[in-house]
Amino acid sequence: MQKLLDGHNVEERNRTFDLMASSNLFILKHIGGDKFLGADYNQTMEAQREITMDRIRFLTHKGVFRGWLTKNDPETALANSAVHECLGTFDHSLGIKIGVHFHLWGGAIKYLGTERHHKKWLQDTEDYNVKGCFSMTELGHGSNVRGIETITVYNASTQEFIINTPCESAQKYWIGGAANDATHTVVFSQLHINGKKEGVHAFVVQIRDEKGQVCQGIRIADCGHKIGLNGVDNGRIWFDNVRIPRENLLNSVADVTVNGDYISQIEDPEQRFGAFMAPLTSGRVTIATNAVYNAKVGLATAIRYALTRRAFSLSQNTSEVLLLDYPSHQHRLLPLLAKTYAVSFAAVQLKKIYVNRTSADSKLIHVLSSGYKAMCSWHNLNTLQECREACGGQGLKTENRVGQLKAEYDVQLTFEGDNNVLMQQVSKALIGEYFAAKRKGTPLVAFGLKHVNATNASIQTLQNSSALQNKDFQISLFQLRERDLLHRLAAEISDKTSKGTSMAEAMLRSYRLAEDLGHAFSERCVLETFIGVEEDQTDTSIKYLLGKLRALYVLSSIDERAVFLRYGYITPSQAQAIQLEITRLCAEIRPHVLALVDAFGIPRGLLGPIAFDWIKYNSWDYAENKKESRESPSSIITARL
Amino acid sequence: MQKLLDGHNVEERNRTFDLMASSNLFILKHIGGDKFLGADYNQTMEAQREITMDRIRFLTHKGVFRGWLTKNDPETALANSAVHECLGTFDHSLGIKIGVHFHLWGGAIKYLGTERHHKKWLQDTEDYNVKGCFSMTELGHGSNVRGIETITVYNASTQEFIINTPCESAQKYWIGGAANDATHTVVFSQLHINGKKEGVHAFVVQIRDEKGQVCQGIRIADCGHKIGLNGVDNGRIWFDNVRIPRENLLNSVADVTVNGDYISQIEDPEQRFGAFMAPLTSGRVTIATNAVYNAKVGLATAIRYALTRRAFSLSQNTSEVLLLDYPSHQHRLLPLLAKTYAVSFAAVQLKKIYVNRTSADSKLIHVLSSGYKAMCSWHNLNTLQECREACGGQGLKTENRVGQLKAEYDVQLTFEGDNNVLMQQVSKALIGEYFAAKRKGTPLVAFGLKHVNATNASIQTLQNSSALQNKDFQISLFQLRERDLLHRLAAEISDKTSKGTSMAEAMLRSYRLAEDLGHAFSERCVLETFIGVEEDQTDTSIKYLLGKLRALYVLSSIDERAVFLRYGYITPSQAQAIQLEITRLCAEIRPHVLALVDAFGIPRGLLGPIAFDWIKYNSWDYAENKKESRESPSSIITARL
Repeated sequence: MQKLLDGHNVEERNRTFDLMASSNLFILKHIGGDKFLGADYNQTMEAQREITMDRIRFLTHKGVFRGWLTKNDPETALANSAVHECLGTFDHSLGIKIGVHFHLWGGAIKYLGTERHHKKWLQDTEDYNVKGCFSMTELGHGSNVRGIETITVYNASTQEFIINTPCESAQKYWIGGAANDATHTVVFSQLHINGKKEGVHAFVVQIRDEKGQVCQGIRIADCGHKIGLNGVDNGRIWFDNVRIPRENLLNSVADVTVNGDYISQIEDPEQRFGAFMAPLTSGRVTIATNAVYNAKVGLATAIRYALTRRAFSLSQNTSEVLLLDYPSHQHRLLPLLAKTYAVSFAAVQLKKIYVNRTSADSKLIHVLSSGYKAMCSWHNLNTLQECREACGGQGLKTENRVGQLKAEYDVQLTFEGDNNVLMQQVSKALIGEYFAAKRKGTPLVAFGLKHVNATNASIQTLQNSSALQNKDFQISLFQLRERDLLHRLAAEISDKTSKGTSMAEAMLRSYRLAEDLGHAFSERCVLETFIGVEEDQTDTSIKYLLGKLRALYVLSSIDERAVFLRYGYITPSQAQAIQLEITRLCAEIRPHVLALVDAFGIPRGLLGPIAFDWIKYNSWDYAENKKESRESPSSIITARL
Repeated sequence: MQKLLDGHNVEERNRTFDLMASSNLFILKHIGGDKFLGADYNQTMEAQREITMDRIRFLTHKGVFRGWLTKNDPETALANSAVHECLGTFDHSLGIKIGVHFHLWGGAIKYLGTERHHKKWLQDTEDYNVKGCFSMTELGHGSNVRGIETITVYNASTQEFIINTPCESAQKYWIGGAANDATHTVVFSQLHINGKKEGVHAFVVQIRDEKGQVCQGIRIADCGHKIGLNGVDNGRIWFDNVRIPRENLLNSVADVTVNGDYISQIEDPEQRFGAFMAPLTSGRVTIATNAVYNAKVGLATAIRYALTRRAFSLSQNTSEVLLLDYPSHQHRLLPLLAKTYAVSFAAVQLKKIYVNRTSADSKLIHVLSSGYKAMCSWHNLNTLQECREACGGQGLKTENRVGQLKAEYDVQLTFEGDNNVLMQQVSKALIGEYFAAKRKGTPLVAFGLKHVNATNASIQTLQNSSALQNKDFQISLFQLRERDLLHRLAAEISDKTSKGTSMAEAMLRSYRLAEDLGHAFSERCVLETFIGVEEDQTDTSIKYLLGKLRALYVLSSIDERAVFLRYGYITPSQAQAIQLEITRLCAEIRPHVLALVDAFGIPRGLLGPIAFDWIKYNSWDYAENKKESRESPSSIITARL
């Protein structure tokens, strides 16, 4: 099952975990002879940043990053992503520092640059001879990259670009790596040339020299302490007449000749902009997967704890009940377990599509990565919060990980595109396909939307157990929701645009349907992937478990989203039957939970102590900062009267 | 409006804020001449604990706590709670340290002890000559206090109690104040006397002497770093044959004579246990109110930011749209604003019932404080999370407060009773009343349940705007939900108990209905309070706003909870109309939001900088840790070719 979940490179993952466990840089503490890995969050941000760089130096020295940019085959890319996921599971700051350097800076050089850039910087990046960062976001513009205010002009006589920060809102902000370490950056800036605003382009700028001194024309400040992720030195950058050679334009999308002529093989400025946004797609794919791994850490910890922790008895003479024997506690955790399995398979499939991508896949990848990034990161935070609460006070101890991970991973919900904005963009893409197909009079094909061409048949009002758990029934229901919401949204938008409202404003006003549709699409895609994994499975006991998890994922999604009742996709009677079915499914899955969380493959050392013998770990013998009386036993102090 | 929301003692609140602003202990930073208050979370837990005690010493020296335990009238209690709320709004650790010392330790002395205890400890507690803590929770038992394992026996020959920690799971855990500072504690322990187990009782034990040395027989260890609240030194305590005088039993509930006879005026052991749990009730009242103030900090910050931050334009030539002009952004924040107003009024009313309580009120207070503690603390966390996301990256900066408050306040969901357990206890109380009334053949009266006696009339299927916003319609709908769920739960339980299942197990299996009912009761009580405030209001413009907020609170609650559709309290058609109505109400409230958040009365210095001129605050002039080139302008470094 672990091979199925991880999807690939289980050996590389284990080797990465072993490597970390071999170095004190990654060991948080020993308790009773057992080793626990983890970053020490009881440190100032300055200290957390330093040790994060120490870890990166160690990993570089061990050759972990060899080939990460210079080798180009999909198999290597997958193997590297497996290693990266494990490093990120250790600590998000570590994962982010590496991701910014390799995938944002390195990815920009590789995919936005051309051979001269590759020759100049790829090997040095791999060897950490340069430290890269990615200057896209500004104080005044985050998700709306088109609106960034940094301006670059061209000086044909010197064959240089000149970059400026024209106002305070244009300062680059949240630039991971910039505050302390980075020597180079890719700057995203408006290009003004020959009296024309050619839009956002990417330029390479050196911001520190080999001695770590800030370069001429560059000003850097710190973003300051964050609620988590303090191992990443986020900085702010101002550019004052910074001059760079013409060749520093990353010119795979567009170029400027020596004479200052602007040329591009892509005629449409919108497409050009889309091409410049390509590094963000790889970021979203990575985020979706990393989010899932942390939900796994939370669930493995909370479920294992609930298998050993007791609270309250049903009668005076019986022992207290194990937390996970409460139907209510099962209901809090097992649907999250089912959904984690679901999004895990989906994230792996997205990754495989991505590393094997051709240009024909780019629209699908854009929509899937946007929807999945939002869905997985929200799922991660919700799961960690529920797991934290399910662990009670122990969930507040940093060493138990589940609580601290919330603060470390919250950023995923808003960077690389705010989740709410991404979901709106998913709907926008679907609506675009819908209207295009309508205009051409052709059936819908893209994005798995073929089912939309069917008549809007309603679901049978079945509600017996086997019907509700049946995969054909379940996929029909998810398709019905998606189909109906798409029709409704299209109808609302057409109604508004026919009365003169712009498309943009119509989408904005129909935000509820757009939001519901974004989730409907994402959840349907996830389900299709899950069903595919289930159908391909030959081992009958694994197939059985996958079927139960898949059924629970679907029924709990339906139970949580009022949209199914609001538009009559199910009847109130079915909704009540679904509630009972969820409780039944939880009980069916309950006997297998330990195996199901062990299949996550998270090493013992990366789970909180409460996942194991927490009474032993909390015993006096292993306590730190112990204090006891120095008095001899014969002199007794009693409370003064 | 602020007087209405705060409910009392606006003057004392302002004086407390001014006092904090007058001392460097409370000032986080100055930016551009403006003062921002706050704790510095970029510190180790050791440093955070130290400065928290420095703050307490300052406040004690200023006489802030005078009379907190020795004066007994409701007016003083309310005034002190106002001061405490302000201190907690500054920093949760500060609020908790003070609360543990005064309300848990001090409250136990005051309400569980008798005159000899008051004489001995109340004044010293007020003056911080003793530092108290509250040893109830154990490693193995949190919410289930009945199951704690610390054992106390009586030695008649020495007239002493002897307290022991018999096994590792019995160690006291999460004891705020114990790790570093506390000199005394109230220990909750099983009392075994005369061959009988008399249940949980409370004893005073000194754990450190004046020099801060741990007393004989006491062992103390640290709970370690937490995800937040690191200004509180939570500790763990073991007792090894600790001997205390007989008089140290807090004996208002029960007593042990010199000869070792156990006596109590309360015959029922259950009632006795309930009496010992009394300090927890005051804790829950405090938590509910404090939770609301932090939701207010989050909303004031996020809404003010959304009034100045722009993102994306609707067309190429128009300026970018203010966040709060997006209907979707309004929908994210304004229902939370409405609910914050609702729970704020409810928390104030609960507080007033509590400080004026008689013994007749105790059942109502128990149920209301349980339901409100769960409702308000969950609302606080949900609000802070949504506000954090609504502020994008800026929500991750610690100085902007909204993000950091999540980690500082998460504890509220599980301490002083896990929220899920509390909601189950609310239902249990309601079902108890229901069955008792049925048995006696009398109508339901308690807990505002009179409406349950009516026939289960359904709601008219009105869905026009004024009908949906009408308060009689709205209260009828909330009452219908509560009534119907109570009937359903009672029917399910009766069905199971008639087949031989115990009441306890029946409640456990009907957990979904019990959970829904707990929320239904709490939300109905909150609505009744809100309607009362609205009806009492004479100023027409305030009355108008209260009506809009009340309507939005109700409609968004209905929209979010599938239960209304699942059991047919509303039709799908009404549900769709409600969605439109919510959007309409948000637009109606939008012009007033600044006044509505200013009415929270949070001083400027306690909101994040993003609530104000965040471009100015982020300008280069005010940046910390600035780095720029030392090179002379004439030598230019360009990226190496």
